[in-house]
Amino acid sequence: MTKQNTVHAINCMLYPKSIAIIGASADANKLNGRPFYFMRRDKFGGRIYPVNPRYDEIHGVTCYPDIAALPEPPDLAIVAIPAVHCKDAIVQLGQKGCPIAVVFSSGFGETGEVGRVMERELLNAAQENGIRICGPNNLGLINSFNNMSATFSQYADLPPIPGPVAFATQSGAFGTGIAALARSRGIGIGYFVNTGNQIDINLMEVLETAIDDERINVIAAYLEGVTNADALIRLANKAMNLVKPFIVVKVGRQAAGARATLSHTGALAGNDAVFDDIARQYGIIRVRNEQQMVDLMATFSFTKVPLGKGVAIVTQSGGAGAMMADRAEELGYKLPVPSGQTRARLQELIPTYGSYGNPIDVTGQFLADPRILKGSVEIVLDDPAFDIAVVWLQLMHGYADFLLDIFCTLKERVSKPFIVCWIEPPDKIRDAFNEIGICLITGTEQVIDAVSGLIEFGCACKRCAEQESPIFSSKPLNSYESTRLPSKIVYEMMTSAGLPVVKCAFASNSDAAAAAADKLGYPVAVKIESSQISHKSDVGGVALDLTSADEVRTTVSEMFSMINVTRPGLRVDGVLLQSMVPAQTEIIVGMRRDPVFGPILMIGLGGVFVEVFKDTVFARIPVSSADAYYMLENIDGREVLDGVRGKNAVNRELITKLLVAVSNFALKYPEIEELDLNPVLAGPDGVTVVDWLATGTFLLDRT
Amino acid sequence: MTKQNTVHAINCMLYPKSIAIIGASADANKLNGRPFYFMRRDKFGGRIYPVNPRYDEIHGVTCYPDIAALPEPPDLAIVAIPAVHCKDAIVQLGQKGCPIAVVFSSGFGETGEVGRVMERELLNAAQENGIRICGPNNLGLINSFNNMSATFSQYADLPPIPGPVAFATQSGAFGTGIAALARSRGIGIGYFVNTGNQIDINLMEVLETAIDDERINVIAAYLEGVTNADALIRLANKAMNLVKPFIVVKVGRQAAGARATLSHTGALAGNDAVFDDIARQYGIIRVRNEQQMVDLMATFSFTKVPLGKGVAIVTQSGGAGAMMADRAEELGYKLPVPSGQTRARLQELIPTYGSYGNPIDVTGQFLADPRILKGSVEIVLDDPAFDIAVVWLQLMHGYADFLLDIFCTLKERVSKPFIVCWIEPPDKIRDAFNEIGICLITGTEQVIDAVSGLIEFGCACKRCAEQESPIFSSKPLNSYESTRLPSKIVYEMMTSAGLPVVKCAFASNSDAAAAAADKLGYPVAVKIESSQISHKSDVGGVALDLTSADEVRTTVSEMFSMINVTRPGLRVDGVLLQSMVPAQTEIIVGMRRDPVFGPILMIGLGGVFVEVFKDTVFARIPVSSADAYYMLENIDGREVLDGVRGKNAVNRELITKLLVAVSNFALKYPEIEELDLNPVLAGPDGVTVVDWLATGTFLLDRT
Repeated sequence: MTKQNTVHAINCMLYPKSIAIIGASADANKLNGRPFYFMRRDKFGGRIYPVNPRYDEIHGVTCYPDIAALPEPPDLAIVAIPAVHCKDAIVQLGQKGCPIAVVFSSGFGETGEVGRVMERELLNAAQENGIRICGPNNLGLINSFNNMSATFSQYADLPPIPGPVAFATQSGAFGTGIAALARSRGIGIGYFVNTGNQIDINLMEVLETAIDDERINVIAAYLEGVTNADALIRLANKAMNLVKPFIVVKVGRQAAGARATLSHTGALAGNDAVFDDIARQYGIIRVRNEQQMVDLMATFSFTKVPLGKGVAIVTQSGGAGAMMADRAEELGYKLPVPSGQTRARLQELIPTYGSYGNPIDVTGQFLADPRILKGSVEIVLDDPAFDIAVVWLQLMHGYADFLLDIFCTLKERVSKPFIVCWIEPPDKIRDAFNEIGICLITGTEQVIDAVSGLIEFGCACKRCAEQESPIFSSKPLNSYESTRLPSKIVYEMMTSAGLPVVKCAFASNSDAAAAAADKLGYPVAVKIESSQISHKSDVGGVALDLTSADEVRTTVSEMFSMINVTRPGLRVDGVLLQSMVPAQTEIIVGMRRDPVFGPILMIGLGGVFVEVFKDTVFARIPVSSADAYYMLENIDGREVLDGVRGKNAVNRELITKLLVAVSNFALKYPEIEELDLNPVLAGPDGVTVVDWLATGTFLLDRT
Repeated sequence: MTKQNTVHAINCMLYPKSIAIIGASADANKLNGRPFYFMRRDKFGGRIYPVNPRYDEIHGVTCYPDIAALPEPPDLAIVAIPAVHCKDAIVQLGQKGCPIAVVFSSGFGETGEVGRVMERELLNAAQENGIRICGPNNLGLINSFNNMSATFSQYADLPPIPGPVAFATQSGAFGTGIAALARSRGIGIGYFVNTGNQIDINLMEVLETAIDDERINVIAAYLEGVTNADALIRLANKAMNLVKPFIVVKVGRQAAGARATLSHTGALAGNDAVFDDIARQYGIIRVRNEQQMVDLMATFSFTKVPLGKGVAIVTQSGGAGAMMADRAEELGYKLPVPSGQTRARLQELIPTYGSYGNPIDVTGQFLADPRILKGSVEIVLDDPAFDIAVVWLQLMHGYADFLLDIFCTLKERVSKPFIVCWIEPPDKIRDAFNEIGICLITGTEQVIDAVSGLIEFGCACKRCAEQESPIFSSKPLNSYESTRLPSKIVYEMMTSAGLPVVKCAFASNSDAAAAAADKLGYPVAVKIESSQISHKSDVGGVALDLTSADEVRTTVSEMFSMINVTRPGLRVDGVLLQSMVPAQTEIIVGMRRDPVFGPILMIGLGGVFVEVFKDTVFARIPVSSADAYYMLENIDGREVLDGVRGKNAVNRELITKLLVAVSNFALKYPEIEELDLNPVLAGPDGVTVVDWLATGTFLLDRT
């Protein structure tokens, strides 16, 4: 299918002028009756063609006995008939000239192998007849701008509110819950799309089309797994270019969740840590749960992105101020202190038992004098140290109008963004705020998370604007049998690709080793070379700090004879000699071909950091210098890079160069499947790869 | 003040039969008018005596011109007059025989030094006249069982609901928000008490009395700092003994929040990590924010504590199931798998596209057949692998009665606890659930956090039941000038206290050192002894692995001469000789006198774990064996103790013995202020203290 075809089909699905409902029913309680009921209720302006041999008309509209009888090819077909009949319907719809069908029917891939076979047949039928499929096992979609509810989702039980959010979800039930939660907060969802089993059209493609709508400012997705990484990255890049945030909830963060997902949709969950880091790399805002997602929908719907990280906290409760300050610090923000001038102005306004630092505690006294609250927000946002303000309140049910007045004035007067956190607000406030366009959050830590989402998005936009769009990487390797490659070959590839590898020599016997060591200079390390050994030191195959040719000769002879005795029949290719590198900070760099994301790069701190804390950062290749710096910033134990326990700070620039070089290496040698550089010794003046292991999918002449 | 006096005063405050309102007003919008208004509205059964020379009567009740004129000593007085007049009122109330006053007035310690002086004067006046004070700067309290709202909090704007929670808060505004949030969730708060500046009665004392009420099953506190650790621990112990959970929100988790708190109430925030670990040690359930607190209030109000950790997840959305499974795993729970028999029974009930593992996906089909949902919960709770179930739903506004029926039956039939997570539930469900006594949580991750609270409480009860109540520790030392103690003295104290210290000898010259080394056996380490040096290796004062008397003699001579040259005038006391201990897993054990909690014990993994990850665990001394084991379980990188990077697993029992020994050491030597054992080398067969540093507050004969 071409890109154009996909875009055309999705456009037909999102903006249909005519909709055929295959298997339509007059019963609004049945899933095949609900779309028609909703669209009549909401006065959808397009043409609806029910198709069902059992009726002549439904709701006074002609009902057609079959697809062939339709008066025109519909822009969109809803298929709501048993799974076994779907293929026929798709063939007929294709032949009629319908570009796309939303298939509600379940009983496909989600039920097991038989269903998967049916799914493949359905897709084949669609491709042969030039029609696209959204679903199956799908509860449909809504374009609320056009009152087009081609869905049986309970979300449409109340009329959807149009608005700036396009929300696509793999899960029908959970997606319905999230959308309903958003509506109850007054957040308008312009497009709601469930993509179900995604045998053809996927969620990313739907959002890639929806994001072009000028009325859409936020895109949001509920994911259970990523099957098409290129589509994800393309969408993320497009969102960045259009400066529209892309918010994602993805389950399967832990093994248990990933297993649960696999069992219910068959989506490939992939390695969640890789997803997490790649999302960050491309500016995708990942949230944990439905509440955070809806908070961020509200935040981005109503609030401008701040130009910097300066958060001002204005509160009427010192305790709430402290909780917000705690959360901000935990997320890595430093709360700026107001300037002397700002403090002086605040001090004039706020009672003595308040506080003028940050958090700014205006006290309950503002109820007697509204200028205290209004003025404090204005004064603090006047200070160049601050880019965004949070105002915290609770209850005040007797003062709703009074406070509404304050916030209306503020919204007019201040140009920097602010968010209101209100615990148990009066009912009227929520509606009024939605109308004025003020974001309301109802949890004290939640509001800081929301501000953080805004700030992180702003930073991602800057970061992504500063670098070229990454080239799309090649498809991941299929799972050929992969072999471990001889050190020597990998060494040559690495040095020719400009990786900073320790000086090495290879020798097949003890005399050659002694001669090679003389050339390298002393001290040297000697390591046995055999592709049949994984852990060289376990077989006595490593000797360090040898200081003379004699020592090298004796050591190598002894190593050979000992291994001959302890591991008879083992194929030994010779020894590897390396210059000794002084002990420095150990890091680990790796490259592998991810089944979802293609070649990915990994960096971690050596030793217990990787083993115990799994403290690694991933990025999708190609990795730019800026990406590489960003990787270093995201290592939890990055403090180690600045030098701890008497070690010097490492040279971060040299590490980023190594990362970029490994990224290029991965593109240059697609036949290398995995490369582990462990350890890499990093210091103030150098970065040296000391040991490595590579696997690949081709045969090499073993020397 | 005696304990009895405190309990009597608090009883009078919580259950007054007569209340005098000093500075009463007829205006229900004024803080001095609100308590009377609330109590009339709610038909408080006790006697109310307004006191104000400006009125003859208020709301038809006689108003007294002054305190002396009152017809009886009131059980409780509310003082709502300007700060400058409070002292007089307290004197008169005391003389009248009133046992306790709640002082609303602000303008005391929270405003600065002048206010702190006034506060001390107020307290002195109270003590001289035999009256207790709750506050000042306090918005009062509510006993909702008795319709007694001695408060001006907005929380009382709607009549409070009686119920099983006693909630005390240091912050008035934030506390009001939390209480209102609880009410909106249908949670009954039996006692709501704000303790304000706490110059006399503190929050812990109030809860210690309230918890004796049989109607109270949950106690909850909002804290800004802990000033009286003994009161906290006593309350926690009492809560454990009564099997009533003690839920705490404490701000000041990070430096920023702690600063913010200090600025607004002057409470001593203390070291938050210490608080966190000590709370866990004594079974206190610490939550992050108001939403988690209210969730746990609801959970404990309505749900039995499960007998084990087996969580069953029953869902109608695979995605939501995955999110809950993720969260459970993240919190350290292993979701049990249903037995073969259970699976078979589930399989008969649930459609093929559901899932029978855990999470159990019953699919939306239960709307057609209620037995699917009802039966699944019954079947799974029949399985001994499960102790508690979570049922996840969303919307279903058209099926509220249908579902209510299912849950009513379930509540009757199953004996194990369950919680319902419902995203955007129908309005009637919340009220109905509160009536039936089913806990409703409205967030997908939140419900797992709530279950975790229940389980953790159950575990804490078991843990605390298994050990004797800890003895209360002595008061912390005041800040005397503390000196570093000579290694030798500390060595002797440690060995006599049974700590496993490496074999040592001390010598003042090179010959004595050689002789001592001969006795110790080789290899030995030599370290310079000088109380003026902090880092011995920095001055060349450490030599390792010496293997003969000659080597020791030469090394010590050279060390002395070198230090003489590089650090002339340094006082050198001699050298310390130690047997060399083979490299093993490094841990750190420490003891210090915390200004709030008195002597505390610390354990951490050595090296980067402590330096970079701050991976330490604290406990209050005395530490039992069980406490010590629990400390080890709470180290993040505890995997290291099981052996990583080729090291053997350490002997955990020996470590716990060391911890208990250090705890005893701290009690035996109150003059030792701080003890650092760093490193302690731990292996499979031994635990050895290799280096130490102690400071203390007494003078010793320097040998």
